[in-house]
Amino acid sequence: MLAEIITIGDEILIGQIVDTNSAFISKELNKNGVQVFQITSVQDDRQHILNALQEAQNRVDLVLVTGGLGPTKDDITKQTFCEYFGDKMVENEAVADNIRYLFQKYFNKKPMDVNLHQAMVPSTARVFQNIHGTAPGMWMEKDDVVFVSMPGVPYEMKHLLVNEILPAVIDRFNRPHIYHKTLLTYGQGESMIAERIEDWAERLPDHIKLAYLPSLGRVRLRLSSKGPDENQLKSEVDALMEELSEMLKDIAVGYESETSIDRRIGELLIEKGHTLSLAESCTGGAIAQEITQHAGSSRFYRGSIVPYATELKTSILGVDADIIEKYNVVSIEVAEAMAQRATKVFQSDFAVATTGIAGPTKGDGVDEVGTVCIAIATPKGVVSEKFLFGKARERVIRKSVNKAFEMLLKEISKN
Amino acid sequence: MLAEIITIGDEILIGQIVDTNSAFISKELNKNGVQVFQITSVQDDRQHILNALQEAQNRVDLVLVTGGLGPTKDDITKQTFCEYFGDKMVENEAVADNIRYLFQKYFNKKPMDVNLHQAMVPSTARVFQNIHGTAPGMWMEKDDVVFVSMPGVPYEMKHLLVNEILPAVIDRFNRPHIYHKTLLTYGQGESMIAERIEDWAERLPDHIKLAYLPSLGRVRLRLSSKGPDENQLKSEVDALMEELSEMLKDIAVGYESETSIDRRIGELLIEKGHTLSLAESCTGGAIAQEITQHAGSSRFYRGSIVPYATELKTSILGVDADIIEKYNVVSIEVAEAMAQRATKVFQSDFAVATTGIAGPTKGDGVDEVGTVCIAIATPKGVVSEKFLFGKARERVIRKSVNKAFEMLLKEISKN
Repeated sequence: MLAEIITIGDEILIGQIVDTNSAFISKELNKNGVQVFQITSVQDDRQHILNALQEAQNRVDLVLVTGGLGPTKDDITKQTFCEYFGDKMVENEAVADNIRYLFQKYFNKKPMDVNLHQAMVPSTARVFQNIHGTAPGMWMEKDDVVFVSMPGVPYEMKHLLVNEILPAVIDRFNRPHIYHKTLLTYGQGESMIAERIEDWAERLPDHIKLAYLPSLGRVRLRLSSKGPDENQLKSEVDALMEELSEMLKDIAVGYESETSIDRRIGELLIEKGHTLSLAESCTGGAIAQEITQHAGSSRFYRGSIVPYATELKTSILGVDADIIEKYNVVSIEVAEAMAQRATKVFQSDFAVATTGIAGPTKGDGVDEVGTVCIAIATPKGVVSEKFLFGKARERVIRKSVNKAFEMLLKEISKN
Repeated sequence: MLAEIITIGDEILIGQIVDTNSAFISKELNKNGVQVFQITSVQDDRQHILNALQEAQNRVDLVLVTGGLGPTKDDITKQTFCEYFGDKMVENEAVADNIRYLFQKYFNKKPMDVNLHQAMVPSTARVFQNIHGTAPGMWMEKDDVVFVSMPGVPYEMKHLLVNEILPAVIDRFNRPHIYHKTLLTYGQGESMIAERIEDWAERLPDHIKLAYLPSLGRVRLRLSSKGPDENQLKSEVDALMEELSEMLKDIAVGYESETSIDRRIGELLIEKGHTLSLAESCTGGAIAQEITQHAGSSRFYRGSIVPYATELKTSILGVDADIIEKYNVVSIEVAEAMAQRATKVFQSDFAVATTGIAGPTKGDGVDEVGTVCIAIATPKGVVSEKFLFGKARERVIRKSVNKAFEMLLKEISKN
């Protein structure tokens, strides 16, 4: 069973926003056995929307539309829907009540006409209440193809999709099972890996696809399979993944699951009752930001210092000025001292420290731009490594964060 | 003149990655007067790619394709291109040389066959060297429509697009000018703003479009215009924006330019010779991460402390424990003390402090989830405000960062 996602909005086509909705929707559909055949982004324009709906109708069984439903522009989208389905607009009392309720609760006043107008929906639409906003979800059918329209605000869309629309899709369609598993590898390029596993890859059965996903120093290898029997898919793919990990055991660091590496670190720390602190110089808060984005981080994360200016490594973190003088601020010695001092200052079991030259200028470093030293202090000591991450600032920071998580996960797993 | 972007890759359609390339390409094309009509994401599949090329050919003048060119999967994409253009593959010597050069430089060895195979290109293609990777850019034409293929790795794509492909596009097509200007407003909803400016919006000339872009406590109002005379567009839109800012002066905080608010803060601080430090509790490093992502931040940013655990606000930052006891850790009094202590500890002119309950659980706070206090210490004193940002952790953090930047910019501009 195939789906298409259509996102409506000029803001996407002029590059003012990145379309994150499509990735979220695709992932959720995939988990539920719905294959996304195509994603199409179109303008807030009647004829363009009509064309996109018609083309999608010819390609797939389910069309999910997001965007175009805000109070100032939903006229175009909803009128176009009505036109496509040969329908007319009627007021939905439940939606109007919800709009009045939300205005009372959040603004303590009555909605304006333009807001109440959002309660107008095509007369044949099955309507899904949006408890987080004023634009409802709408489900329509034409020649056995299902069209669903959702608001474009990610928070509202996610809630509607997961709680209302996916259950309805599961109810309506027979779907095969889709199973993905992804192996994370570090330190070797895509082509080198491909050569190492060439024979194995050629023997893969037809219903299992292998994909290479390279990015910033790591290559992810994904196996995807589709079929009627979930358990069979899972045991087949799991067995193949075992073979693959064994072949690549020098570079494989584990499977990518729903849980990202930063989440796994948090889970492990909580499980083991350990705490973490950070001393981030060149990464400037990027590691802390990843850690604290997840609920529950306060159970293990003690805090961090970003001693961006060199002298602050001494004044705040308490790193011996002589070490900085002797080895230079970007050195494994300073990284190790930073990590060890962080465990003292924050009274944490583990600490991560970064010091480096993110570029494009050298700052207080003597090494070349892209040089980064990372240290992990553990209850048993400290480990560190020096890297050269290239010239582009954004990539240097990103690679440092990735590498720090990789080193930290390894140490937590051991300790 | 119209363009379409086609992104190729199963990883997009299963939601494993977010397509950020399209937003970058759209923005660059727009700046150069090329309107992006549609963005289409398709699978690594011969027939699907052929269909997408054919459909795009019927819609636009320029088709930009990204992805599908990695060493392990470029066969499908390039063979499909050859098939679409009725062409055959030949080896390009310059590309082969570049591949050998990159392998020598980065791996100190010879490329493998699978890498050298990336030097095979359609015989009629105009080839653009990719100095950052092994997959070249390719330019082909069919019935007056231009097709350009680029690698999907963002870093390589961006470089090729900006330095090689855009100049060629500018050379090849007559383009109108496109001019956008966006006003940032805080604190009022889309529908309320729409009502306030209704009469004005109705009088806008046909070639100027108004759009509302609401997100997380702010609404951006964008005027877009298109025409042959750049200066005329600019002066028209600028004058209209003056009117709009005047009408909305209670909620307008400035124009959005190429420069984001975090970048503007950095520029202003450098210009005035002032420094900044941060004490981020509930935002956990997110402000630091935004600040340090830009080159040159070390010229004004001294560093930050993330005192995530309550007692660290005293032990590291030196906030009086009595204040925390008396007013509670989430209070404007504690936020102000944190900001003022940060200016002392880091010897900075300005400091931002955040303390709050990002949720979903309350931690050490007594207020409801979503309560956040933000303080800005300045050379002349300290300002602070208490907010209620809703229940969703990610949104609470994001709104806190936005609000902190807004308050900080205001204070820097005054001081």
